Amino acid sequence: MRYFLELQYNGTGFHGWQIQPNGITVQQELTDRVSMLLKAPTSIVGCGRTDTGVHAREYFAHFDAGQLPDGAAIFLFKLNNMLHPNIAVRAIHLMADNAHARFSARWRSYEYVIIRRKDPFHQGLSWRCMYSVDIDRMNEAAQLLLGERDFACFCRSHASNNTNICTITEARWEEDGDLLRFHITANRFLRNMVRAIVGTLVDIGRGRSDGTAMQRILDSGDRSEAGTSAPAQGLYLSRVQYPEAIFHQCLARADGQSEPL
Amino acid sequence: MRYFLELQYNGTGFHGWQIQPNGITVQQELTDRVSMLLKAPTSIVGCGRTDTGVHAREYFAHFDAGQLPDGAAIFLFKLNNMLHPNIAVRAIHLMADNAHARFSARWRSYEYVIIRRKDPFHQGLSWRCMYSVDIDRMNEAAQLLLGERDFACFCRSHASNNTNICTITEARWEEDGDLLRFHITANRFLRNMVRAIVGTLVDIGRGRSDGTAMQRILDSGDRSEAGTSAPAQGLYLSRVQYPEAIFHQCLARADGQSEPL
Repeated sequence: MRYFLELQYNGTGFHGWQIQPNGITVQQELTDRVSMLLKAPTSIVGCGRTDTGVHAREYFAHFDAGQLPDGAAIFLFKLNNMLHPNIAVRAIHLMADNAHARFSARWRSYEYVIIRRKDPFHQGLSWRCMYSVDIDRMNEAAQLLLGERDFACFCRSHASNNTNICTITEARWEEDGDLLRFHITANRFLRNMVRAIVGTLVDIGRGRSDGTAMQRILDSGDRSEAGTSAPAQGLYLSRVQYPEAIFHQCLARADGQSEPL
Repeated sequence: MRYFLELQYNGTGFHGWQIQPNGITVQQELTDRVSMLLKAPTSIVGCGRTDTGVHAREYFAHFDAGQLPDGAAIFLFKLNNMLHPNIAVRAIHLMADNAHARFSARWRSYEYVIIRRKDPFHQGLSWRCMYSVDIDRMNEAAQLLLGERDFACFCRSHASNNTNICTITEARWEEDGDLLRFHITANRFLRNMVRAIVGTLVDIGRGRSDGTAMQRILDSGDRSEAGTSAPAQGLYLSRVQYPEAIFHQCLARADGQSEPL
């Protein structure tokens, strides 16, 4: 049977999602703990890679197993107690056999959080960025990202993608007290894309680039035209959307309720 | 001239406020950095001690100096950049000569935060407490704390106080989604008092102690009658109130505004 784990993680202290020969990763942690609980080596497939220090407010990963020992609620409770404190399993779902955490995902959303003061309770959870920025200019430039196009200009060079075409359906900044939040949704993202977009938009907001910069960068298709990447610690994978039909049953939720997604 | 620093700190990784022969403390950090900036050994006097791992959302400390080099705004900016990331200076105030961070304080408020799920973004900032509790019972028992009385029953034994009499003006629980917040205000607090009260109230909320427990504990005057102390990481010093007249001028604020308190 195929199961989805619905996760959250704080990327601080992890070398990203994907298993690495050296360094602790979220995938490694989950693989070790799930295998231990199931008493069988178990592969965990994630919905995507996140880089070192990047967080996930919502993340899905799948694995295959028979009946869960002692039932899903106990499995979930034990798994949360065994896992690193920076990883929480929110729910476990029984899926359609062909559901795939990565390939079934239709839309992914990221949030980027900038904080404009020193906040001792927000260490590693945002980019402390004291520049004064014009949020209206940043939103105007962000609008140019919407639609389907080639985003090579925001892709880490040397990445070997078949295509750099993505469809962006949301790209907007929101002011929330001392926080600035950037929301972006697309069918797919290229490596380093959100951080490169955020860095570029902040340059525009600061007036380091003029209002025509975004269109010029997009037209250039050249990563060297865009701004420096914003730091990892401000970035959150915030939502992953799948076709509803692949979710057969929510077996257990960490908050004690067992409700469908 | 006497100055007040208005601070916030995340207690994670500090051995509390007060300077210790071994271990990093908030007072030590401030003393070192302020002395460096003023190019003179400078004593920092805090509004109270906090234990290892306890946080402060609002904290005041005083020191004496002449004119601040380069002015208060530059001093504040440099100090924040030099200080440990878990300490933020929010403002600097010019005070009446006799203003004293500890002895001038009239009321102190603490908040205790309980979280009822695993939250990877709240590490060290709350007590993860999965017991199901009856918040109405906890609030009923908390009401018995109000007023002026001897609180020896909630004071760490071997503490050498002249008196254990405190006046509590606020003691209430509030439910906020997956969080439970306890708010308590008094003219003074004894060592370990809030954590002992929270531990006792949670025992009552869980039904480990009955509804008459709080009155019995208060009447006993005996620390061994009360519950186990709740863990340090859920506790925040949240407000310190002084007579308005001792504040002469707010010289600089970290958010760039210079406004009176």
